[in-house]
Amino acid sequence: MKAEILATGDEIRSGALVDSNSAYISEKLEENGIEVVRHTCVGDDLPLLVAALREIGDRVDLAVVTGGLGPTSDDLTAEAAARAAGVELRFNQPAFENVESFFKTFNRPMTESNRKQALLPDGSNLLYNPVGTAPGFSLTMQKCRFFFLPGVPYEMRRMLTEQVMPEMLSLQGDAAMHSRVKTITTFGLPESLAGEKVAGVEAAFPGVKLGLRANFPQIQVKLYGRDTDPALLDQRMDQAGRWALQRLGQNVISENGERMEAVVGRLLLERSASIGLAESCTGGLLANWLTNVAGSSDYFLFSGVTYSNRAKIDVLGVRPETLERHGAVHEKTAREMAEGARRVAGSTYGLSTSGIAGPDGGTEDKPVGTVCVGYAGPDRSFGRRLYFPFGKRLMNKKIFTMAALDILRKELLKI
Amino acid sequence: MKAEILATGDEIRSGALVDSNSAYISEKLEENGIEVVRHTCVGDDLPLLVAALREIGDRVDLAVVTGGLGPTSDDLTAEAAARAAGVELRFNQPAFENVESFFKTFNRPMTESNRKQALLPDGSNLLYNPVGTAPGFSLTMQKCRFFFLPGVPYEMRRMLTEQVMPEMLSLQGDAAMHSRVKTITTFGLPESLAGEKVAGVEAAFPGVKLGLRANFPQIQVKLYGRDTDPALLDQRMDQAGRWALQRLGQNVISENGERMEAVVGRLLLERSASIGLAESCTGGLLANWLTNVAGSSDYFLFSGVTYSNRAKIDVLGVRPETLERHGAVHEKTAREMAEGARRVAGSTYGLSTSGIAGPDGGTEDKPVGTVCVGYAGPDRSFGRRLYFPFGKRLMNKKIFTMAALDILRKELLKI
Repeated sequence: MKAEILATGDEIRSGALVDSNSAYISEKLEENGIEVVRHTCVGDDLPLLVAALREIGDRVDLAVVTGGLGPTSDDLTAEAAARAAGVELRFNQPAFENVESFFKTFNRPMTESNRKQALLPDGSNLLYNPVGTAPGFSLTMQKCRFFFLPGVPYEMRRMLTEQVMPEMLSLQGDAAMHSRVKTITTFGLPESLAGEKVAGVEAAFPGVKLGLRANFPQIQVKLYGRDTDPALLDQRMDQAGRWALQRLGQNVISENGERMEAVVGRLLLERSASIGLAESCTGGLLANWLTNVAGSSDYFLFSGVTYSNRAKIDVLGVRPETLERHGAVHEKTAREMAEGARRVAGSTYGLSTSGIAGPDGGTEDKPVGTVCVGYAGPDRSFGRRLYFPFGKRLMNKKIFTMAALDILRKELLKI
Repeated sequence: MKAEILATGDEIRSGALVDSNSAYISEKLEENGIEVVRHTCVGDDLPLLVAALREIGDRVDLAVVTGGLGPTSDDLTAEAAARAAGVELRFNQPAFENVESFFKTFNRPMTESNRKQALLPDGSNLLYNPVGTAPGFSLTMQKCRFFFLPGVPYEMRRMLTEQVMPEMLSLQGDAAMHSRVKTITTFGLPESLAGEKVAGVEAAFPGVKLGLRANFPQIQVKLYGRDTDPALLDQRMDQAGRWALQRLGQNVISENGERMEAVVGRLLLERSASIGLAESCTGGLLANWLTNVAGSSDYFLFSGVTYSNRAKIDVLGVRPETLERHGAVHEKTAREMAEGARRVAGSTYGLSTSGIAGPDGGTEDKPVGTVCVGYAGPDRSFGRRLYFPFGKRLMNKKIFTMAALDILRKELLKI
């Protein structure tokens, strides 16, 4: 079956807001074997909305429309749908109760304009909104089944997953395919090389499709499988997954979408271990990523963000001779920083970064993109020099941080 | 004049990539008085591309198309444009030299497939690409002037600004309007309140339009002006700008799009001052933002990210009695942290955060969203308690960080 997506609203049309909903919906539909052929965006303009809905109804079998379900006079989607379908708007009691229950939960007064949100096109089915005031609805026009959802991303996502996808899959009927997606997150391979390593998966496992998604500096390898027989499909996906994991080896961070900082946090927790950091070039990003994980206070104790040499000496106990002889960006300095962080924090592990993020500060010997990562554990400590050719300050901070976390991950896993 | 935008490419159609180009282009066009009425996205599919181009050519005066100008067999935009216009593709020598010069600059071998990028529809005008291999072109079909640009954002943006906008403005001819945009960045006002404060600007200064853009936790107030007389326009924009600045008062961070961390960095530099930080709940984000600014090593010396009480005591010299009596989240603790950071860093100023970012750790007295900011300067030091009702960990980290920077900004400006 073919589908289109229509995003509505002046914020998106005028460019005040980037439309991330359409990409999200496309990905979900494509993962479930529904081909998305076109996205459209129009503003809060009744004739244009009606025209766009009619065009879509003429072209495809399925459509998801986002936005324009709120209480204000700018919210025109239900009226446009009614006009496009040639029906009246009618008060929908369950929709009204949906709106009402939200206001009750939050103990806020409901206004007359919220009553408008319960006016749905005649013949439409309510799509209950469990997390907001705007109920959605579904409606068939011409040959197409339309699903109207709010524009607020977390409301849209929940209603799409819980209500729209099941109905779309049942509409596929005899043609219904079971589908699976396996996401393997990797670090340390460029996208092209990751792609080459797993390019053979489609030939080795017929019916499995390969996708690559770069989320700098991580690369996600995605395997999509579809079959009418769910048991056969699970077996094939399992085999294809193991095949890909073997080829990607130690570059695999997770098999479930987990991010590097969450993986490292989990490994520390599982070992009842803790971490102290010393950061120069990453400027706090390493600590920031680790502490983005809820519950990180169970293992994260301290980071010394030491830009100045004085702070490296005073706070971390780096030896002045080391700095004098080798400079701040050196394996020996990084190692002493990690040892100092471990000692000051009283933690199981110490991890450090010292490098040149740019734009200035590079030399022939140590160009912008050079980073030294220091590691200190119960058994040993070391410093390691790496170089990344990206050139941009913010990209360098990210990849330096990721490289340091990857060194810690491999030490924790003893790989 | 009315315009549409067409984004092409399977990555966008399938949702692998969010289309941020269309929002960027819309904003530029709208700022220049050109109304954007619709965005469309289709994949790398020749018949669909041709159909979309013909529809757009029937509907509007101007169109910007992005993507599909590369060397591979998936890149179909030039061929689709030729078919939609009913003309042939023809080898374009200046386009070829554009591609060639890029390869020469980077000392890379050119392949036969790159030659394809110099095949442009007959009757089109080359749009030179100064930063990539894909030349663009412009072409009139039906009543519409089309501009075809690469999909790589920084190539597209540069060609749009340097080549497309001037031609579009000249096409407006007698209707050509001069346009100005003034962007005022604010912090500390909710979007609705910022809007209320400046709502009168459109009535007070006819021809000036108001826009608000939330970039959490900052709010941008935008004033758009258009006139045929540039001197009158400048005068009116100047007056409207001063009017808005007065109403927004101390909540104004910058008048030129500068971000908070850049403003604070500039204020420190101007005073030949330096900064040391102590972070608990912001977990390194404060240091990370400040060090995202190139050249920040001139004033940023140190941050102690002290999650554990031990690190607060050992590294920052917070008194154990203060922690025992008041806990980690308290004005007194925050003040001692800031004083400690200033002392350890040997910096002019010290700034600290201690709070509850969530999801756990809140109490009735100090719910999730509570933060204490500490300030220490040459003349005085203090701690201040704030509360933000956003509830989510990552949002709390951001707004705590911004609130701390805003306290430092106001101290530096003595406002």
